[in-house]
Amino acid sequence: MKFTISKQSFLDALQQVQHVVSNRTTLPILSNVLIEAKGSELKLTTTDLDVGVSGSVMADVEKEGATTLPAKRLVSIIRELPAENVEISVDSKNYASIKSGPSFFKIIGLGEDEFPPLPKFEEAKEYKMSQEVLLDSLKKTSYAISTDETRYVLNGIYTSFKDGKITLVATDGRRLAMVENDLEFPSSHEADVIIPSKAVQELQRLLTDKGDVIIRLTDSQVAFEINGSLLVSKLIEGNYPNYRQVIPNNTSERIQVGREAFLETVRRVSLIASDKSNSVKLAFGANSIDVMANTQDIGEATERIDVTYGGAEFAIAFNPEFLMAPLKNLDTQDVYLDLIDEMSPGVIRIDGSFLYVIMPMRVTN
Amino acid sequence: MKFTISKQSFLDALQQVQHVVSNRTTLPILSNVLIEAKGSELKLTTTDLDVGVSGSVMADVEKEGATTLPAKRLVSIIRELPAENVEISVDSKNYASIKSGPSFFKIIGLGEDEFPPLPKFEEAKEYKMSQEVLLDSLKKTSYAISTDETRYVLNGIYTSFKDGKITLVATDGRRLAMVENDLEFPSSHEADVIIPSKAVQELQRLLTDKGDVIIRLTDSQVAFEINGSLLVSKLIEGNYPNYRQVIPNNTSERIQVGREAFLETVRRVSLIASDKSNSVKLAFGANSIDVMANTQDIGEATERIDVTYGGAEFAIAFNPEFLMAPLKNLDTQDVYLDLIDEMSPGVIRIDGSFLYVIMPMRVTN
Repeated sequence: MKFTISKQSFLDALQQVQHVVSNRTTLPILSNVLIEAKGSELKLTTTDLDVGVSGSVMADVEKEGATTLPAKRLVSIIRELPAENVEISVDSKNYASIKSGPSFFKIIGLGEDEFPPLPKFEEAKEYKMSQEVLLDSLKKTSYAISTDETRYVLNGIYTSFKDGKITLVATDGRRLAMVENDLEFPSSHEADVIIPSKAVQELQRLLTDKGDVIIRLTDSQVAFEINGSLLVSKLIEGNYPNYRQVIPNNTSERIQVGREAFLETVRRVSLIASDKSNSVKLAFGANSIDVMANTQDIGEATERIDVTYGGAEFAIAFNPEFLMAPLKNLDTQDVYLDLIDEMSPGVIRIDGSFLYVIMPMRVTN
Repeated sequence: MKFTISKQSFLDALQQVQHVVSNRTTLPILSNVLIEAKGSELKLTTTDLDVGVSGSVMADVEKEGATTLPAKRLVSIIRELPAENVEISVDSKNYASIKSGPSFFKIIGLGEDEFPPLPKFEEAKEYKMSQEVLLDSLKKTSYAISTDETRYVLNGIYTSFKDGKITLVATDGRRLAMVENDLEFPSSHEADVIIPSKAVQELQRLLTDKGDVIIRLTDSQVAFEINGSLLVSKLIEGNYPNYRQVIPNNTSERIQVGREAFLETVRRVSLIASDKSNSVKLAFGANSIDVMANTQDIGEATERIDVTYGGAEFAIAFNPEFLMAPLKNLDTQDVYLDLIDEMSPGVIRIDGSFLYVIMPMRVTN
């Protein structure tokens, strides 16, 4: 195998696939990127056996072939090369010679036949949706994915194709984020799956705000085809909890508040919340919210936000991180706080398809 | 105590003193900043008992007084405040009320009488030198300070006032950096001391490229007066090794090389050096240096640099980090490599007062 390629486009293509590669792998081949040179392009593939990514890049291929090279080391070398172009040739022992300007590197690879192939997607259900919509939906939900590995069904985004809608849900048991969008697909394609967190991260890297993404589903795998790149992932097996039952049906108070100002206030007041008593209290009064925190031996903080509110006076406490997470990831001017009382879950909504349920905290006065 | 101050200038002043404060202190008062309001300014002081810093800032003082407040928490609050000005009042129990726009904080401080005073510098030897020269000298030497706590005399910069010169030396036993500058002082002021690493770091933060610094020395303490701020530090007790004896007297080969190009080349080639065999080899030939690395199971790298060289062919190996450190911290166009043979220490010099001795590594071919 021998090819010449622009340093920058090779680096960009490698960086798109390198995040899948694990540093602590017992199988050395999984640290490597599969490079296949054919026609006028290179195809690059990485996998950790759960998630795999492949992409392609134009190159001047002098001799077709394939090899696998250590991905992180290759990226570190290509990034530092001194010239605009790089020439790479690989011998039959998978020794790759890398030439660029006055630099010469030789790195040791492994045979491409050892590289585990990505799964095939024959007889898969296929869906097409806007990249921008999917990216936006992931941004609004993915921060709520549970990182508790003992609750593995929650370590991903529940994705449901049903009633002409795609619904994404993430929860860690203490808060839940949901986005729903219309999507056309035949009723035979109704399905619900759990996409693991690592695939969600890769997906957010690959999606852009232009064009469509093709989604393919089998019983145990999902694939995303994005601008010529491919992301495949195992699905999480198991039953996602019935999230609909945690969403309050009717709320008694709706308070509209400026998103950024609310975020700033909660951030400031939370500086007084300690690790132990990590809560901020929202006290609703006549046309105001007093955001408060109080920690023994440290001190207290209060800040008032003016709002339109004529309902009953009451107070409710939340974990400040959980309150700030949706505010950081939304982009609307205002949000609506839909509340019932100090003991019931609160809901954050916007003008648009988004819903966030957050459990209140018990606070002693 | 009560004062009003611009948020930004209070933040700047706090940030100048906050680095001394340790997070893991058994003495709570050492986490606090001493704030003294008098006339039209605040004096801010922090100390960890080894190193102390104080500075002052203009404020509108309504009621004079003093208190101590948790430094890191105060900085985090002041940084986030929403308005341009902040009003702080402290009651007799050292509860500080902080008001800025709609924000109100109350944080709990400790009495100023518990705060350990900074040492006095009566009957100290006094020196005056350019801030710019001292800052430049510290930059060129401080990276070579040993971090090995079992060799405590090397955990600082040896500073000698002798023969009308100030000499700074740092070494960790495998490399040594030295800068020497002319300085006027009476012969009664000849002295040599070891300034600890933490004080060197603080000093680099406080020094600017304008004006002078006043240095005061007693038997066990040093003070630096810089633009109205004061840094005091204990000195390291003990005998610094005789560093002069590791500097080769005469070297047989001098090679001039472009500093940045040499740095880039060593950085690239060192990508192949592993943690185990962390060395790069410099092979000197007719008008060239081949910079090389070779690691079993990983691969090899070579890059040639053109130089003017007509001496004998030979090769010498160095730790790449130790070779790059001075190259990163110098600012001259070129450096000189002064070498004897593959077994003897190498020396890096510039046009100017700087010298760096680096021990070669044994490398098997």
